[in-house]
Amino acid sequence: MRLSNFFLPVLKETPSEAEIISHQLMMRSGMISQSSSGIYSWLPLGLKVLKKIENIVRDEQNKAGVNEILMPTIQPADLWKESGRYDDYGKEMLRIQDRQEREMLYGPTNEEQVTDIFRRSIKSYKDLPTLLYHIQWKFRDELRPRFGVMRGREFLMKDAYSFDLDHDECKKSYYKFFISYLKTFRRMGLKAIPMAAETGPIGGDLSHEFVIISETGESDIYFDKRILSEDSKIEDVAYDNDLEQVVQQYNNYYTASDEKFDQTEFDNNVAKDQQTKSKGIEVGHIFSFGTKYSEAMKANVLTSEGKQAYVHMGSYGIGISRLVGAIIESSHDTKGIIWPNVVSPFDIGLINLKSSDEKINNICNDIYSNLLNENVDVLYDDKKDNPGVKFSKMDLIGLPLQMIIGNKTIETNEVEIKYRKSGEVKYIKVENLPNFVQEIKKSSAI
Amino acid sequence: MRLSNFFLPVLKETPSEAEIISHQLMMRSGMISQSSSGIYSWLPLGLKVLKKIENIVRDEQNKAGVNEILMPTIQPADLWKESGRYDDYGKEMLRIQDRQEREMLYGPTNEEQVTDIFRRSIKSYKDLPTLLYHIQWKFRDELRPRFGVMRGREFLMKDAYSFDLDHDECKKSYYKFFISYLKTFRRMGLKAIPMAAETGPIGGDLSHEFVIISETGESDIYFDKRILSEDSKIEDVAYDNDLEQVVQQYNNYYTASDEKFDQTEFDNNVAKDQQTKSKGIEVGHIFSFGTKYSEAMKANVLTSEGKQAYVHMGSYGIGISRLVGAIIESSHDTKGIIWPNVVSPFDIGLINLKSSDEKINNICNDIYSNLLNENVDVLYDDKKDNPGVKFSKMDLIGLPLQMIIGNKTIETNEVEIKYRKSGEVKYIKVENLPNFVQEIKKSSAI
Repeated sequence: MRLSNFFLPVLKETPSEAEIISHQLMMRSGMISQSSSGIYSWLPLGLKVLKKIENIVRDEQNKAGVNEILMPTIQPADLWKESGRYDDYGKEMLRIQDRQEREMLYGPTNEEQVTDIFRRSIKSYKDLPTLLYHIQWKFRDELRPRFGVMRGREFLMKDAYSFDLDHDECKKSYYKFFISYLKTFRRMGLKAIPMAAETGPIGGDLSHEFVIISETGESDIYFDKRILSEDSKIEDVAYDNDLEQVVQQYNNYYTASDEKFDQTEFDNNVAKDQQTKSKGIEVGHIFSFGTKYSEAMKANVLTSEGKQAYVHMGSYGIGISRLVGAIIESSHDTKGIIWPNVVSPFDIGLINLKSSDEKINNICNDIYSNLLNENVDVLYDDKKDNPGVKFSKMDLIGLPLQMIIGNKTIETNEVEIKYRKSGEVKYIKVENLPNFVQEIKKSSAI
Repeated sequence: MRLSNFFLPVLKETPSEAEIISHQLMMRSGMISQSSSGIYSWLPLGLKVLKKIENIVRDEQNKAGVNEILMPTIQPADLWKESGRYDDYGKEMLRIQDRQEREMLYGPTNEEQVTDIFRRSIKSYKDLPTLLYHIQWKFRDELRPRFGVMRGREFLMKDAYSFDLDHDECKKSYYKFFISYLKTFRRMGLKAIPMAAETGPIGGDLSHEFVIISETGESDIYFDKRILSEDSKIEDVAYDNDLEQVVQQYNNYYTASDEKFDQTEFDNNVAKDQQTKSKGIEVGHIFSFGTKYSEAMKANVLTSEGKQAYVHMGSYGIGISRLVGAIIESSHDTKGIIWPNVVSPFDIGLINLKSSDEKINNICNDIYSNLLNENVDVLYDDKKDNPGVKFSKMDLIGLPLQMIIGNKTIETNEVEIKYRKSGEVKYIKVENLPNFVQEIKKSSAI
């Protein structure tokens, strides 16, 4: 993509309403534009990241054997009256009357809607387990939306639901999602810690939050340092293994959020040199809640003994739009964002330092088309801005690798390569660039 | 995908509320499930088709150089008060009050929202043209929603917007979208006729509807038959050509909808043997409307003479969820859907006629994994149903090609191949199947 054709409205000033670094950087780098309080438009740079995260989440759900569906944003209130949550949910639920004065709502979550789909279709234990997910915009009318996309009102979430014959089968589904979440976050370059959580008003007996470590996180977390090395083997775990054993390895380590933290327990369970305190950001949450909804909404199946049984359910969420902010919180410096390669909006930034010079333009155009031919997604700054503007813009938007072409390239026949994260700089002869590109593609350096 | 793992709740009976064939077939084949009046959940089979259509639309917009963004579903009423449409729009607009009693709405379209994004970011003629699109759910509170996804209340649409310095530049953008729409529909295997349309209350002087021919369409259309052959060359039109000339070739042919039809004009402009009357379904609409919104919302840029000028705008829509229904209306038979290859939810249906037989299972498993290795998206019916159920289900869901394995395969060492559209049947030796798969991949027969 040529920058001259790319809609990238970078801001010079940090908007005063942006309190945290990810919100500031997303506004400054033209990733989002505010529509109203807690509601954002995603501009091209931000949308590319959002889609990359969405696709990783989707791919891992598919690999875990979960079926993708898409439920509407607007739901009938009647379903929520069946479950009893219509009155309970409070003002965070955006309630709507349509032109026929029917009560509707903008879904803040989808347990009722998916249970309705299930009960219409599945009648026999033979069709269990049924695992469904969708990736859809949701709305929670937060009293004080803040922190940009980290706590917005309209937000993109992957929510999944499991339906099983009994508690033991339900636990198997729960473990499957547990593992799939660890695989998902690891693929994004994140260290996610599964922390046993309260099940709260949703009921049930199994619940974990997935929290990523970030210096600027929203809450304090305490954990045994050794849990951080556990996920190095998670990619290799196949879903037909004994997953309970893998989950148990994580549960063996002490973890606690601020509210649940107990120093004595910490000292008793974790050696001093492994005790870690950090800030964290919640990016996923999984629950198992038994027959809470299936009983209320009469979602039952015929068992092998010919009896009717209420199905056991779980729900499993990942905040996709929230992850964009969370990744920035955990990966940035004073110059701007530092994208992990797999979610970076482009692989490479190509900077033309003198687009008034025909020779330099020709070199850049050659490199640009060669990169495109190699399926490298490159952002080519072909604009007439001065070098300082170009450097700071490219650092701000945080692509992993920069290729810099200018007068020096003509003199020395060398391209300057800059790695955004380390700041490392090296020089490659123009004719060796194709080899270099092959190498970095293989090494996943982009 | 194994059918035993795929959530495909096929219905035995046609739901009585479904009046038209696409609605009936989408319900019967488990593509959608109704949530409330005019609002549907997309089940896995339907969602796969929706995504394929969405991706073709996206790819063609990208090729035309349009930048993808994503605006929220919930918009502030204030923007619509600026443009003057808040009061005009009527009851089709879903109006909402949030917990702070701010007036909000579920976007039925996005001229105001995108103009707001534009005016915040673009200040100079140098950044024009600006072309933006998004693919997002919209809501129109139809009084009587019907025809399934063809006239739903919550629907998926691609809407694009162009911003240009003056009317002449705006026309160039308009032509670009005109051509991109012809390319888009042709890629889906559809014959789309661009018909000059009234610009109506939206104002402006350039407007076309894109209508596909379907026996079961919603309105009568009249046209010169020769326009149908025009688009055979459209794939080759590059966007740096003189597009006005290409557009003019289409405009030379007489086309008219029911309301605008005039028999004398038809006779004067079209030879008797080229006169065609048919039913049609509108799947796209493009408008140019000058400075209507830019004046009301103060979206202006600095010209090269240093003056302020209101930008000239156009908007360009494709009904993505509607297209799913429209394609079925134009491609089905008494047995069910017949998908054009490029939007088919799977490439091939593999039918195991005797899943109690180990030999037959082994043959099927081999074929299944070979197809997956070849990146052929195959739905493998591995269930224990009887052959009649399997055949009618596979015909109903309309995959282009079926591979049928049963006792006969053991006897003759041959796989039965059935083409869904033509009904043609042929037999291929098991050992020749890999070659056959290579051939059909090359010939785009799947």
